[in-house]
Amino acid sequence: MQKQPLILITNDDGWDAQGISVLIECMQKLGQVIVVAPNGARSGAACSITPLTPVTLKLEEEEENLLVYSCSGTPVDCVKLAVEKVVPRMPDLVVSGINHGDNASISLHYSGTLGAVLEGCMKGIPSIGYSLRTRKQECDFQPYLRATETIADYVLKNGLPQDVCLNVNFPEVPALKGISICRMARGIWQSEWKDTDVPGVYKLTGTFTNLEPEVEGTDYWALDHDLASITPLNLDMTCYPFLDTLESLQNEVLSYSRRGQR
Amino acid sequence: MQKQPLILITNDDGWDAQGISVLIECMQKLGQVIVVAPNGARSGAACSITPLTPVTLKLEEEEENLLVYSCSGTPVDCVKLAVEKVVPRMPDLVVSGINHGDNASISLHYSGTLGAVLEGCMKGIPSIGYSLRTRKQECDFQPYLRATETIADYVLKNGLPQDVCLNVNFPEVPALKGISICRMARGIWQSEWKDTDVPGVYKLTGTFTNLEPEVEGTDYWALDHDLASITPLNLDMTCYPFLDTLESLQNEVLSYSRRGQR
Repeated sequence: MQKQPLILITNDDGWDAQGISVLIECMQKLGQVIVVAPNGARSGAACSITPLTPVTLKLEEEEENLLVYSCSGTPVDCVKLAVEKVVPRMPDLVVSGINHGDNASISLHYSGTLGAVLEGCMKGIPSIGYSLRTRKQECDFQPYLRATETIADYVLKNGLPQDVCLNVNFPEVPALKGISICRMARGIWQSEWKDTDVPGVYKLTGTFTNLEPEVEGTDYWALDHDLASITPLNLDMTCYPFLDTLESLQNEVLSYSRRGQR
Repeated sequence: MQKQPLILITNDDGWDAQGISVLIECMQKLGQVIVVAPNGARSGAACSITPLTPVTLKLEEEEENLLVYSCSGTPVDCVKLAVEKVVPRMPDLVVSGINHGDNASISLHYSGTLGAVLEGCMKGIPSIGYSLRTRKQECDFQPYLRATETIADYVLKNGLPQDVCLNVNFPEVPALKGISICRMARGIWQSEWKDTDVPGVYKLTGTFTNLEPEVEGTDYWALDHDLASITPLNLDMTCYPFLDTLESLQNEVLSYSRRGQR
């Protein structure tokens, strides 16, 4: 008999958030589920880790085919702890989310949801992040259940290329029109600080502007047109086309270092 | 008369760390310097931001051509605050470091030093991160001063392509043998948790293994051979070659969504 897939779930909104409970429900249809997620909100945690203070792991729920742990660390810590201290074997899939708020365009760099996905990828595990474009605390996740499951099922069956993971974003719609395979849109965050009553003390906020709103094939375009976006992400951030150009810099530094050796 | 370049400096070791004072010294030769750096250690902060608590900015030092501010936030917060609340005009360059410890291979994903660099890049400013492979608290930065300045000068003169920044790593050597233009090496962190006296409480540690130690042209290979590595990084993490393959997934989800519409 073939073993059930082992699926590790995390997020950055906390183990008891609405979005993760929806994700657990979807993934239980596909395999055995272990949850290791933060013990509270970790929005904007990106790929951060906790090198200076100890991290606590706590069993919160135990059911057939489901174990839920909370962790005092970041989403990346959750994946690291799960892989080394919790799972009986290497998971077949890491899924993170469903985040309350989209992680499209450059916003993914700040995202704890995506931090966990990149960490799963660094561990060699096929990994997917799910996010929903919404400003509501309470959301209707019903329109996204089937796509969430279909995408995870596809990845379980087909795998992903080495060092590649998926960033899935859903628009807030009564029914998904479909999905679009996308690249990241170019965008910029501006007006990011709100003054407080105390001089020199600021509160982070901000307005995101999509710099290419008309460009089909970008994640923001998809969301703007009621489509889910799926963007494959590279762990390797090297800008290969620029390596050759930089050789001139190499020569500049080499020539000084030759001079230095005289 | 041409304006002096305006250079914004930050790091993740804190505004009074040794590495940043070296960087300030180098950059003062190239232009007017403004420092906005964390008020303490932020190792492992990655691209994290502080969305939930207010962030404090404090003027620490004021000299001719040099302003130093501390900030209670992350390295990314520092860049965001500097750009919006401190600088008189958009900086010509963002430099971050010099970090105590390398940020080569996948380690860059966790790095607050590189988080600030990516943030500078997101703001459209040419940005460079500098890190030194060392385990010492007190380092001799003398061997890296000239290369640090040469690389920054090159970027001030030539710029960088849109959405590309530089990750520079130095080996700990009495004299640099030269520099190498590199891609990120493939690597993995393992054995990442040390037990504490309390069950369920762990301390983050870990061993890094370079998965391609013999491959010339990777950042780790350069450091292992006493060369500085310069790796250009993309802000856009999209894995373009995989977009076509994923179209089959698109069809799978579209077909269910067509069924759903019946």
